Amino acid sequence: MVDTLLVIGTGLIGTSVALAARRAGVAVFLADRDATAARVAEALGAGLAELPRQPVDLALVAVPPAQIGPVLRDAQARHSARSYTDVAGVKGRPERDVLRLAPDPASYVGGHPMAGRERSGPLAASVDLFAGRTWVLTPNERTEAAALERATTLAEICGAMPVRLDSGAHDTVVALTSHVPHLMASLTAARLREGPAATETLAGQGVRDVTRIAAGDPALWTDIVRSNAPAVAAVLRDVRDDLTRLLAAADVLAGDDPDGHAEAQHMVTDLLERGAAGASRTRPPSGPPSRLTRIRVVLDRHPGSLSRLLQAVAPHGGHPDRASAALDRDGVLLVDFDVPAAAAGAAVAELAGAGWEVARPGLAAAGH
Amino acid sequence: MVDTLLVIGTGLIGTSVALAARRAGVAVFLADRDATAARVAEALGAGLAELPRQPVDLALVAVPPAQIGPVLRDAQARHSARSYTDVAGVKGRPERDVLRLAPDPASYVGGHPMAGRERSGPLAASVDLFAGRTWVLTPNERTEAAALERATTLAEICGAMPVRLDSGAHDTVVALTSHVPHLMASLTAARLREGPAATETLAGQGVRDVTRIAAGDPALWTDIVRSNAPAVAAVLRDVRDDLTRLLAAADVLAGDDPDGHAEAQHMVTDLLERGAAGASRTRPPSGPPSRLTRIRVVLDRHPGSLSRLLQAVAPHGGHPDRASAALDRDGVLLVDFDVPAAAAGAAVAELAGAGWEVARPGLAAAGH
Repeated sequence: MVDTLLVIGTGLIGTSVALAARRAGVAVFLADRDATAARVAEALGAGLAELPRQPVDLALVAVPPAQIGPVLRDAQARHSARSYTDVAGVKGRPERDVLRLAPDPASYVGGHPMAGRERSGPLAASVDLFAGRTWVLTPNERTEAAALERATTLAEICGAMPVRLDSGAHDTVVALTSHVPHLMASLTAARLREGPAATETLAGQGVRDVTRIAAGDPALWTDIVRSNAPAVAAVLRDVRDDLTRLLAAADVLAGDDPDGHAEAQHMVTDLLERGAAGASRTRPPSGPPSRLTRIRVVLDRHPGSLSRLLQAVAPHGGHPDRASAALDRDGVLLVDFDVPAAAAGAAVAELAGAGWEVARPGLAAAGH
Repeated sequence: MVDTLLVIGTGLIGTSVALAARRAGVAVFLADRDATAARVAEALGAGLAELPRQPVDLALVAVPPAQIGPVLRDAQARHSARSYTDVAGVKGRPERDVLRLAPDPASYVGGHPMAGRERSGPLAASVDLFAGRTWVLTPNERTEAAALERATTLAEICGAMPVRLDSGAHDTVVALTSHVPHLMASLTAARLREGPAATETLAGQGVRDVTRIAAGDPALWTDIVRSNAPAVAAVLRDVRDDLTRLLAAADVLAGDDPDGHAEAQHMVTDLLERGAAGASRTRPPSGPPSRLTRIRVVLDRHPGSLSRLLQAVAPHGGHPDRASAALDRDGVLLVDFDVPAAAAGAAVAELAGAGWEVARPGLAAAGH
């Protein structure tokens, strides 16, 4: 049960959580060492900018990672709440600080709601900031069940999906999926700074995507990198080893001596293949493949006949990306389409009726 | 004038150019060492799958970079065209090959239409593939004016924007804006391959963007890296130097010894700042800032008053991202909004009429 909540730190995250808790009918108290921030949160309807008279069910410590230990120590010394959680993007160091400093570490469970905005502060807050997002909780062996339960309830109140993870695993995964990608975007973008005048003209969507997050606030990201430096350094070391091998291969391929070219190309391909495999883990899995049926059409030599055929099969779900073509031994062009199985009968009938030579409908393997 | 065109190599690019040329009324001939590809292009209405009886105005050589020299030599030996151009994504090596091999290098100008698709082959072709895209042309000191003029006309026929560039500058810029970003995406994604089970759960839009292009075909990209290896290696060397410094800084920040932390943090911030500056070169420049007027509203202490105010100013262009708040010395919350200057009068009148205390409208600096 979370009927009463104290939010310590009414920035973007703290205020957004408070708004969601208020919407769910929770009594919310707001505190911030910046009195304006707390009053803005109050004026937004996020709760009352005052300290509770009695312990609340849960206190949310929404302050930078390095301040979590001291802030939690003070809050527990005042008996502010029955349970405590935080929202920092790294979990190992806050956990160690709490175990070392806090009077009652068992009442704390680490948390990381995985949402943010480019703008910070309570004015940027949104009641739906966490809707559908992952909210990591990192209980340790001393964490009591009530703390985990209350933090889980708060995540659910915010519309987030709570996920339990060991604090060390959390920090490794965010280094892999957030901190190092940000640094790689910065390393890539830093090279563009001194590029020739045509850089803007030739930059397309690919480099725009790779470097988009490099536009983030350098001071904030320095703080993030610092707070997760051990995990970031471990991943960067592996990247550096791959890059060293890649650069050696590029140097060989840039030279005139064909010796070693085959091995260097193999090295490049191996990296690109590992990258393609890794990139697939960032995309949601696709659903089960739909059943497709293959239709074969025999084309006459009239220029443009294929584009007319493409128009004829489009309404039945036929698409050039699911088509292939081959010449038979007499030089006749055969075009195979995969169309959704349910549409195949109508497609064959309509094509035949319109005078196309439909050669052989059959079952195709599932595609795309 | 380009009234007649020969496309040698009817893959995605060659066929798309041919379709655009046909639409503009150009007589197009199609050739490919894969007879099926030429016949598919013909069946799509891209031209006739045969060689011209007389020299055409322009021949477009749309084959892989390493084959441009030999293919152009053979085409010129047959007197296929009055001028020649190509579509390879690197320009230095084809230019050197042509100068070395071709009977008439002056009739050739390098070209690089900057568009593509994830799917290759003539079936993926589109008449609008180049609409609004950049089409680089790389004349050298031997290139005759007629060759440059005809290639420029072809780019315009395709709806592209022709841009002239030295072949060396082209290769440096595409290394910076395309080839190295692809490799950086692969280096980042390769780390994800062996990440813990929670990698999928915690991967968000940021890493998805950084690694998106790493899903490209490894064999094709090995070929691209190989063909531009000198420029790629030069950029990668600078990246490696930055990464070496970054890793050293991360190691210092991961350690318990506070010595050197300030310097290490400075190093990280410097990289992030250079990255932010470089990333800005990939985005189209924003238009001139619109004139804004600042409106100040004095809030009472009623919880939620600010959210009601936000609703009241939204129709006048007031947005939380253009607002700030401060407490005055009496603890009263003052909220400043920047609204479009043209809307300010109506906004002030409506707010005052609805009982808000509008304190001081004034001129604000241009924002966002």
